[in-house]
Amino acid sequence: MGKMHINNMQTIKHAHITKVVDSSPDMAWLESRGIEGSTDLASITSDDSIEAVIIAASSSEHVQLIEQVAASGKAIFCEKPIGFTIEAILQAKKAVQTHGVKCQVGFNRRFDPSFASLREAVNLGQVGDVFSVKITNFDPRRPDLNFIPRSGGMFLDFNVHDFDTLRFISGLEIESVHAFGSNLVDPEIGRLGDIDTSVISCKLSSGAVATIASSREAVYGYDQRVEVLGRLGGIESQNQTPTTVTTLHESSIASEPLKTTFVERYKEAYRLQMKAFFEYISHPELPSPVNIDDTLCAVALSIAADKSYRENRVVSLQEII
Amino acid sequence: MGKMHINNMQTIKHAHITKVVDSSPDMAWLESRGIEGSTDLASITSDDSIEAVIIAASSSEHVQLIEQVAASGKAIFCEKPIGFTIEAILQAKKAVQTHGVKCQVGFNRRFDPSFASLREAVNLGQVGDVFSVKITNFDPRRPDLNFIPRSGGMFLDFNVHDFDTLRFISGLEIESVHAFGSNLVDPEIGRLGDIDTSVISCKLSSGAVATIASSREAVYGYDQRVEVLGRLGGIESQNQTPTTVTTLHESSIASEPLKTTFVERYKEAYRLQMKAFFEYISHPELPSPVNIDDTLCAVALSIAADKSYRENRVVSLQEII
Amino acid sequence: MGKMHINNMQTIKHAHITKVVDSSPDMAWLESRGIEGSTDLASITSDDSIEAVIIAASSSEHVQLIEQVAASGKAIFCEKPIGFTIEAILQAKKAVQTHGVKCQVGFNRRFDPSFASLREAVNLGQVGDVFSVKITNFDPRRPDLNFIPRSGGMFLDFNVHDFDTLRFISGLEIESVHAFGSNLVDPEIGRLGDIDTSVISCKLSSGAVATIASSREAVYGYDQRVEVLGRLGGIESQNQTPTTVTTLHESSIASEPLKTTFVERYKEAYRLQMKAFFEYISHPELPSPVNIDDTLCAVALSIAADKSYRENRVVSLQEII
Amino acid sequence: MGKMHINNMQTIKHAHITKVVDSSPDMAWLESRGIEGSTDLASITSDDSIEAVIIAASSSEHVQLIEQVAASGKAIFCEKPIGFTIEAILQAKKAVQTHGVKCQVGFNRRFDPSFASLREAVNLGQVGDVFSVKITNFDPRRPDLNFIPRSGGMFLDFNVHDFDTLRFISGLEIESVHAFGSNLVDPEIGRLGDIDTSVISCKLSSGAVATIASSREAVYGYDQRVEVLGRLGGIESQNQTPTTVTTLHESSIASEPLKTTFVERYKEAYRLQMKAFFEYISHPELPSPVNIDDTLCAVALSIAADKSYRENRVVSLQEII
Repeated sequence: MGKMHINNMQTIKHAHITKVVDSSPDMAWLESRGIEGSTDLASITSDDSIEAVIIAASSSEHVQLIEQVAASGKAIFCEKPIGFTIEAILQAKKAVQTHGVKCQVGFNRRFDPSFASLREAVNLGQVGDVFSVKITNFDPRRPDLNFIPRSGGMFLDFNVHDFDTLRFISGLEIESVHAFGSNLVDPEIGRLGDIDTSVISCKLSSGAVATIASSREAVYGYDQRVEVLGRLGGIESQNQTPTTVTTLHESSIASEPLKTTFVERYKEAYRLQMKAFFEYISHPELPSPVNIDDTLCAVALSIAADKSYRENRVVSLQEII
Repeated sequence: MGKMHINNMQTIKHAHITKVVDSSPDMAWLESRGIEGSTDLASITSDDSIEAVIIAASSSEHVQLIEQVAASGKAIFCEKPIGFTIEAILQAKKAVQTHGVKCQVGFNRRFDPSFASLREAVNLGQVGDVFSVKITNFDPRRPDLNFIPRSGGMFLDFNVHDFDTLRFISGLEIESVHAFGSNLVDPEIGRLGDIDTSVISCKLSSGAVATIASSREAVYGYDQRVEVLGRLGGIESQNQTPTTVTTLHESSIASEPLKTTFVERYKEAYRLQMKAFFEYISHPELPSPVNIDDTLCAVALSIAADKSYRENRVVSLQEII
Repeated sequence: MGKMHINNMQTIKHAHITKVVDSSPDMAWLESRGIEGSTDLASITSDDSIEAVIIAASSSEHVQLIEQVAASGKAIFCEKPIGFTIEAILQAKKAVQTHGVKCQVGFNRRFDPSFASLREAVNLGQVGDVFSVKITNFDPRRPDLNFIPRSGGMFLDFNVHDFDTLRFISGLEIESVHAFGSNLVDPEIGRLGDIDTSVISCKLSSGAVATIASSREAVYGYDQRVEVLGRLGGIESQNQTPTTVTTLHESSIASEPLKTTFVERYKEAYRLQMKAFFEYISHPELPSPVNIDDTLCAVALSIAADKSYRENRVVSLQEII
Repeated sequence: MGKMHINNMQTIKHAHITKVVDSSPDMAWLESRGIEGSTDLASITSDDSIEAVIIAASSSEHVQLIEQVAASGKAIFCEKPIGFTIEAILQAKKAVQTHGVKCQVGFNRRFDPSFASLREAVNLGQVGDVFSVKITNFDPRRPDLNFIPRSGGMFLDFNVHDFDTLRFISGLEIESVHAFGSNLVDPEIGRLGDIDTSVISCKLSSGAVATIASSREAVYGYDQRVEVLGRLGGIESQNQTPTTVTTLHESSIASEPLKTTFVERYKEAYRLQMKAFFEYISHPELPSPVNIDDTLCAVALSIAADKSYRENRVVSLQEII
């Protein structure tokens, strides 16, 4: 993840990546790119020539790293969702506010050209008042089982993205949620206390409704769709295939299967996310494209969905924050 | 509706429509087709040459008509959903059972070639165990406001189809439902005590989940889709356009808008429904393609969804029947 | 073919099919539809109650039948292309003109909703001046080999449709053609002196150009497409599939194969063709939707294409008529 | 063009761009990338540390540059088509052979993932023997009129790509061609002695046929399609849109217009072309992905098409080379 961010940042005019701190930095790779490697965060926080820091550590270290970097007065890009609890995120928020530093959270999907195009269309009123939104979020393969216990659970690991996408595209707040969940893909996931299949319903502030269908495994690929119905029409972001090739045989017409990795599917989104971060830190007056309150909302809604699933009832956002 | 059924039945080899009973029969139309018109149901029930009766009256008369026709020993095709209450449907069921007559309920969408193809694929295991199902059911225009009070409410008028489609395609029973509803399309609908926009979540007997998104008005046309995700893959029935014409201009690539009437969209389904009814009554051993228990289930689930919406909680089917 | 025309005509209000003449009429089938069967053409030509005759005999009898029916003063619908030579068609034209009867030739594709929609768009100037037209005409299976010798050859049997479609949609005349042809599908076709694969280029009266790709066998189905490029944009008629079902698997996304018979593909076109014929004969002032000059042009162009292929050179229409 | 190649090459591991020679090099841009700029070709040809040279000068200088670079023993990548005459290309071929240097010609479309996928499918026999190929090559806007006189004419400037694509994908040689051409887009192009619209037919070595439709202006975008029909099925490469967004309104369903620049449309092809060149020069045993004989063939066929258009007759490749 860190390497991808570096690659993307290095294609941006006037952006310079000078140092990387890691517990075991890949010195050869860094050297070939003219980047200094270190295991000591102080080498960054004490370096006045550095203006901004990209945090792509493991989730559990995010808050502490934000506190240290914020204290050094540098702008921060931190991978989503910063933390799995409301408290953790509020702690990060306090550090950022206290030191008055800029902070962008890594909800990369906002920068996907198709999703961004939907948001713009909705924002410009091209579909009129939003009536309903449908989100499909299916991963191609269940994750490694070792990941499950430290994933935060399916709602926090997975749907945190969808809640952010829903708020981003609709421009509306989500007031209450209901979730049904099941363990169908792999019984091991159930044994680890998690689910792998769910449908979530949402009631939005305007009265609009939304539904999110999720699965840890759709063998046909990375199924990532958003559909908006409004008073004046509908708008959808459909799936992507690697090529535009179609094969016609006696038994079927076939196109290529869907892209299968998030790196491939959201390649352009990751690139544009870094571009947006560079823009943001280069212009003092710009607000954060994805601020800490955005991640606070998305995490709170994920916690609400989890609670709804466990207690088999509707849960309002107010119960959580 | 009656005329469409007659047209469809008349294209079937060996099928003869001989009499129509109506409060004000269109005698000229009937005559041109060699059909006798009458205002008296007895002219049908007392006619031994008649083997089967198609009931397409207003919903409130269905049960009584079923009782009279069943008593005469004739096979029955009755428009869905027979009645809006569990009691009404059980009353019809009793009549059918008592007199041992055949009975098919008019859930026409089961005969849509695309929906039928999904069901067959699921049934043959082509997508493996079902993980989730997504149904979109958007009408092109809200109905005439006069219709709202006698519609049974949106869940009963609208989603009764979706609950039947979901049971039909998945081959699974629905155990509990949750519904969010809103009045967004037209405030008059709200004043009449109804909603026009909803999302319903379902938990199925196998643990599979489903979501149904509904709207009384999608200005772009009749949006009727079903998507199934299973262990081995996905299968979808997409929308239909009247032609395959695509226009390419500087600002967009455009295809024709969706079909906009249920008559047009489900034309083939209505034709095949009559064909299935004729097959069913022509072969003593055949079970009903859509029996009274099917409509009982669909109505009970619609009532559960309505209750869920009104009480803001999950409702199980067991609470209703 | 005759039965299909009867079925279609019988769905039209006020249209009555009363007699069928055939060398061996299917009496049972006719009786069930209230139609009189006969082997004697005089039973039609001498019947004053009959206003119009549909000719769907074998191609070699068309001209003679037109002469007899025209002499009786009745309107005529005749299957395309009436005859395989300029002389034969001129003979039919003379009969029709001499007796002043109405005559429509069976170029059914003009009535296909997609093709008709293209023609209307071009006619209304929606794509501006036509720059080029591309036609794809692939049959799903080569015909029975017995048919080849009496088919008129591939250009006359097959491309006669395309030349008519090209004139119809573009609204332009075709001035010269070039054809490359090959025998690739089945060597037996070559042994019978015919080809099964071709590309034809056309120069139109306005300077616009066109290309027609044909094959006797595309195993994936009936591939029938038209694409128009104009100054203001493009418009295309794409292929049709029987349902809108899409299946997503690990190796591909598959939709149903194309329709495979002309009866299925052009079902609606055949129905609308009969409707147009009924309209035409019901209104004295209406011109023929497809007149004899249209078939004369299409046949002459097919002969030109054949000549071009055999002599390996460009052939102008003027050389033929 | 040169900058794009540099950008692409710099993303390749182990590839180093060290010098650029240009009549007026963009020193600031080069410096920011650690590249030395010069106006003297000798600074490259005399530098032993340089192994390969990318030639992206104006077409008229290509042959002379190839001679100089070949004489210095360095591998060459040269933009297509090297020259507009058979003589020019043979002169370049002689230089490359004499000095035994590697040489790749810039037919970038061979590296487009969709086109490459078609070639692989055909090569693996997935569609069986090729029956016919259809190529669409429409530019979004006619070029600047100043470019027309030095373009080599439409067939050489434009269709040279299509002839290469046809040979590449089919794996077959083209034996004779026929072309119709017109000046329809802009009368100024005609006044400059060129055309802007054409259809070309090809007869291939196996008897297969092909058609190429070209236009200097399709206002709806860059229309670049290839369709192959074979004994066992068909395979097509369809157009690309920048996003997967679909908008549904009352009057139409619209998707984004096509990509409109070759840089955008063939972005990945240009990247993979550089990758292929780097592979080729890094492995002594590898043959050229696009050798001088390939460009010789494509140019000869373009000259044949031009001759066919001017003389209104079929022209065989043998007449040209």
